[in-house]
Amino acid sequence: MIGVGVIGYGYWGPNLVRNFAQVNGGAVVAVCDANEKRLEVVEKLYPAVATYRTVDEMLADPAVDAVAIATPVSSHFPLAEAALLAGKHVFVEKPFTRTSAEGERLIELATDAGLTLMVDHTFIYTSAVRKIHELITTGQLGQLHYYDSVRVNLGLFQSDVSVMWDLAVHDLSIMDFLLGIDPITVAATGVAHVAGQPENMAYITCMFPDNLIAHFHVNWLAPVKVRQTLVCGSEKMVVFDDVDMSEKVKVYDKGVILDEDPREVYQKHVGYRTGDMWAPRLDNVEALALETQHFVDCIVDGTTPDSDGHAGLRVVRILEAAQESMTHNGLPVEVPKMRTVAR
Amino acid sequence: MIGVGVIGYGYWGPNLVRNFAQVNGGAVVAVCDANEKRLEVVEKLYPAVATYRTVDEMLADPAVDAVAIATPVSSHFPLAEAALLAGKHVFVEKPFTRTSAEGERLIELATDAGLTLMVDHTFIYTSAVRKIHELITTGQLGQLHYYDSVRVNLGLFQSDVSVMWDLAVHDLSIMDFLLGIDPITVAATGVAHVAGQPENMAYITCMFPDNLIAHFHVNWLAPVKVRQTLVCGSEKMVVFDDVDMSEKVKVYDKGVILDEDPREVYQKHVGYRTGDMWAPRLDNVEALALETQHFVDCIVDGTTPDSDGHAGLRVVRILEAAQESMTHNGLPVEVPKMRTVAR
Amino acid sequence: MIGVGVIGYGYWGPNLVRNFAQVNGGAVVAVCDANEKRLEVVEKLYPAVATYRTVDEMLADPAVDAVAIATPVSSHFPLAEAALLAGKHVFVEKPFTRTSAEGERLIELATDAGLTLMVDHTFIYTSAVRKIHELITTGQLGQLHYYDSVRVNLGLFQSDVSVMWDLAVHDLSIMDFLLGIDPITVAATGVAHVAGQPENMAYITCMFPDNLIAHFHVNWLAPVKVRQTLVCGSEKMVVFDDVDMSEKVKVYDKGVILDEDPREVYQKHVGYRTGDMWAPRLDNVEALALETQHFVDCIVDGTTPDSDGHAGLRVVRILEAAQESMTHNGLPVEVPKMRTVAR
Amino acid sequence: MIGVGVIGYGYWGPNLVRNFAQVNGGAVVAVCDANEKRLEVVEKLYPAVATYRTVDEMLADPAVDAVAIATPVSSHFPLAEAALLAGKHVFVEKPFTRTSAEGERLIELATDAGLTLMVDHTFIYTSAVRKIHELITTGQLGQLHYYDSVRVNLGLFQSDVSVMWDLAVHDLSIMDFLLGIDPITVAATGVAHVAGQPENMAYITCMFPDNLIAHFHVNWLAPVKVRQTLVCGSEKMVVFDDVDMSEKVKVYDKGVILDEDPREVYQKHVGYRTGDMWAPRLDNVEALALETQHFVDCIVDGTTPDSDGHAGLRVVRILEAAQESMTHNGLPVEVPKMRTVAR
Repeated sequence: MIGVGVIGYGYWGPNLVRNFAQVNGGAVVAVCDANEKRLEVVEKLYPAVATYRTVDEMLADPAVDAVAIATPVSSHFPLAEAALLAGKHVFVEKPFTRTSAEGERLIELATDAGLTLMVDHTFIYTSAVRKIHELITTGQLGQLHYYDSVRVNLGLFQSDVSVMWDLAVHDLSIMDFLLGIDPITVAATGVAHVAGQPENMAYITCMFPDNLIAHFHVNWLAPVKVRQTLVCGSEKMVVFDDVDMSEKVKVYDKGVILDEDPREVYQKHVGYRTGDMWAPRLDNVEALALETQHFVDCIVDGTTPDSDGHAGLRVVRILEAAQESMTHNGLPVEVPKMRTVAR
Repeated sequence: MIGVGVIGYGYWGPNLVRNFAQVNGGAVVAVCDANEKRLEVVEKLYPAVATYRTVDEMLADPAVDAVAIATPVSSHFPLAEAALLAGKHVFVEKPFTRTSAEGERLIELATDAGLTLMVDHTFIYTSAVRKIHELITTGQLGQLHYYDSVRVNLGLFQSDVSVMWDLAVHDLSIMDFLLGIDPITVAATGVAHVAGQPENMAYITCMFPDNLIAHFHVNWLAPVKVRQTLVCGSEKMVVFDDVDMSEKVKVYDKGVILDEDPREVYQKHVGYRTGDMWAPRLDNVEALALETQHFVDCIVDGTTPDSDGHAGLRVVRILEAAQESMTHNGLPVEVPKMRTVAR
Repeated sequence: MIGVGVIGYGYWGPNLVRNFAQVNGGAVVAVCDANEKRLEVVEKLYPAVATYRTVDEMLADPAVDAVAIATPVSSHFPLAEAALLAGKHVFVEKPFTRTSAEGERLIELATDAGLTLMVDHTFIYTSAVRKIHELITTGQLGQLHYYDSVRVNLGLFQSDVSVMWDLAVHDLSIMDFLLGIDPITVAATGVAHVAGQPENMAYITCMFPDNLIAHFHVNWLAPVKVRQTLVCGSEKMVVFDDVDMSEKVKVYDKGVILDEDPREVYQKHVGYRTGDMWAPRLDNVEALALETQHFVDCIVDGTTPDSDGHAGLRVVRILEAAQESMTHNGLPVEVPKMRTVAR
Repeated sequence: MIGVGVIGYGYWGPNLVRNFAQVNGGAVVAVCDANEKRLEVVEKLYPAVATYRTVDEMLADPAVDAVAIATPVSSHFPLAEAALLAGKHVFVEKPFTRTSAEGERLIELATDAGLTLMVDHTFIYTSAVRKIHELITTGQLGQLHYYDSVRVNLGLFQSDVSVMWDLAVHDLSIMDFLLGIDPITVAATGVAHVAGQPENMAYITCMFPDNLIAHFHVNWLAPVKVRQTLVCGSEKMVVFDDVDMSEKVKVYDKGVILDEDPREVYQKHVGYRTGDMWAPRLDNVEALALETQHFVDCIVDGTTPDSDGHAGLRVVRILEAAQESMTHNGLPVEVPKMRTVAR
């Protein structure tokens, strides 16, 4: 039985506690928060769970085998480092860390100590993203041409991080999982419309080998909520609309036809074909339930999480490159080679 | 009575003939096309209209006061030049010309000869764009923050021009009309997914003074048809959805609220307000009917068309800059100052 | 070559002329209209076509083998009768006739003279309805449970006929084609909201054997345009949304599951299953082109049209029953047995 | 401080407990359920709340001033009767009772004892329905012409009640609140597609004075979820789409225009006008929070709830009439006069 201690009981922490409380082979044994009122809520709801005001106290608790960190991003590194040094497995909110150096250090610590390190890339555990992953890896989409994502709405401005670290982190983690390869360059343009505040909208472009391009529009200042991703392959195209309650994933049997007229050797005609549309049934499971179970299973079995420290680090590296590009008017910035082997 | 001669009776020409045939103060007097079959159709439908196989013949016809050019873009310049030199007013399809040098030459010729020169930026004559223009110029949107446009679908690949010159020309002409100011820089990234073909998808970014940004996604290889533009101001935000048959323009009374807490002088809280949505009724008139009437009126009254040669030239200059940026991996390219006075 | 004469060149007539002009094995040879101006349009557009001011003149023209009648419903019977008596094949707009007696007489005349009689139930020649028909007749939907149709919008009030004879005639002809069996009873409720005018909204219910029910909502006074039909079977369910430009027909793999618990013999649990959704590609052909070709083919081959006089009569009989029910507060009215053999 | 005891902690009970726990001037003091497991959940979440296995025990608790009944409909009457006889105020789930006789008896008991009796017609406390109510009562819609409601989806079949008592009860309670007058007749047609089960789909029609008609489609066996209501008045028309997350209520400035041509005294032309659409901002409050507060306020102030016993009874009477009509093939059934004064 893996004892899990949750650090931070603010916005996301309660979801972690609720889900870790229901995993097989694990249990929530402690919650840590500096806010007294929040701890009182925990005590009422989960009388058997220990509550701590400081992280040190929690890390000293031998019943805590693993910690789940749901605090602001600036504290991810110190908290995760302390936990790993105390011999605890770590589950940490996204974005993984503020810098890639921090991420590398955490991966090193976990590897050396043989501990499980996992980043909460929730979306990759949704039925919708899993289904698209299956379509890609089984070759049904053919060769991938582009990935286009729009995540905009009228949302709370964050005062510490830009919209990229708040919203694009979702889409970059999905892209990282779906495409399975690293971008060569990243370019980004962002604008801040409120003086003294970070960028509230940004466009990010990732270039991959073989003319594969990925593009992201993230925006806190939009009148309507859009959550739409196009994944276009040579054989089929996918529309993933996360706002659609009934048909989130639609697969279109559409594409280009090259008219190889032997007489017109110099001028190929490009036509297109259009076939059926198909919306696969998606399981109705909470992604976080699958994900928290996966974390506990990885600890028990010694397997590597789908969203391990490397996945978290890859996303941070893209965000770092995007950040740098943004300060240079959208100049493309090279991303260091991250995967040792392509998929 | 202004006699109009239409050059090119292919895809768009019949629409021009039909509309010019109904304007007040004007009439279609001639149609020119190299294709005999097309001329036969004209002869059947409009027995009173003269038909010509060559442009020279048509330009020699004294009944022709003005010509409307609906031919491929590469022929716009020579045909318009010949017409202006022959003393004819000119109405020309978009994009205006292949290069800004060509555009400048046509403007010069028309100005010197006192002839009307107009570019067919059809969209700026639609009820939807006119309504948004009214909202902007009357200050109802407040200070403009961004303009975001998506024009994608599965469409015919052009073999001579990239998707930018085919699709973005629509959106750039709308933006030019709505914003009324010139971008400082243009950046563009495009990809060709069919070997030997021009770019079939592109992202274009225009930067304006005061943190105003415009962004365009144009794409011939998308599974769904999207025609959506967001125009965000400090007071109100507009969604223009050209695929929506019943409510193309929606105005959202939404925006940011700055919480000026005197005690928290260093950390402003950015909240948001959300009010009613309003979809103004739009007149149900064919844009081309208004536009062709406008051309004839401008000739008769000696007034300047809303989409004059300068408007056409501004759009061509942005396309040129985008083209240059595209060949330099999205590096922002400065756009020459085009308007002498801002609106 | 079948020579077709079109009677009535108002709203629908031009579509008939344009389509009959393009059929194989047929040609438009004459158009008849009392309105001089309309005939002038015909003469300009189709110089080879004879024009007549009276029906008698047209019927005397030996080049006319068949007539297409596109006039108000009250004139369908006298015109069709005269044409049949003159030995012409007849294509007539919907609704077929004002009364079933009139319809019966026309069928009798056509049968006796060996002439083709066809009613313009255009919708049954659309790709969407053909696809649904295929799904039903191949058994893919299973046993049919219900047919529910909504056809509402803000539309022109007709002063001579109620909304049932104007709008429901479309849906009843589709239903007649798709279900292939006759209703046992028809009930209808309608309301007139403008004094002195016919009913502008109505609800119609048809009861069939085996608990199959069909229901229709037709309305001239609705703020939004809805064209939605649900066809529910035991195996699959279809949504036909004619306003949707890209996916008109959606097939849902959904249904009821009976939990046959042997211990709970008296209380079955009814659960449900939900599977993929599938939107079949539909051919992009004009229904009227198929339909006019079908008429000519039937004349040449001596085959029976899909929408023959009997189909037109069945729809008129349902409308008559609905009309009677409406005057009796929605009392169900029996429909005479119409098909001699069920499908 | 009004002490509230909640009877039934199954599907809806937890929502009642959570909301009554937060009202001003009231508190949850007891929960009653025969199921031991459910009571354990209550004890963990709300340690200060007394838990009872039987209703008698709870009614004997002097701290309980009012009871909220969230049990199957067949038990509403005996439980509410016992509570009123024990001097407790009563809040009861919809449908109010199985029969109008039961409802009348409860109203009588409450009136005689001076106790507050309220039915949980949750929808009438939503921002959307309140806004439509305001539009109607301030005359903005003009004279009402029709009310058309569709509530369909693939849903759990109830084995004890038909779809009318499960789904139509929502719409009838909304209609009762919005229209404020009683129907003269009710007609209903329903079908059961699973042998031995109650009707899983039904159409209900209510006729009111002045040609006002209301129609309802309720269905457990539909492939898509539709929650759409049209409210049409002579001045404006409303579309209430409860599935739309962003714009639930849309107000259309559309209507009929009578062309009073003095020369055509016998034949009025009916045209139509179409103006702006407007989607009012709706407060984002939980209806049940407002409603539970309203119950406590009514007890304290001695005022009558918006959804009092009479409202509950009116809905039950319409359901009874619909049930009777359904067994007589849709014959319209008169509804007894319910309101003593019209609005």
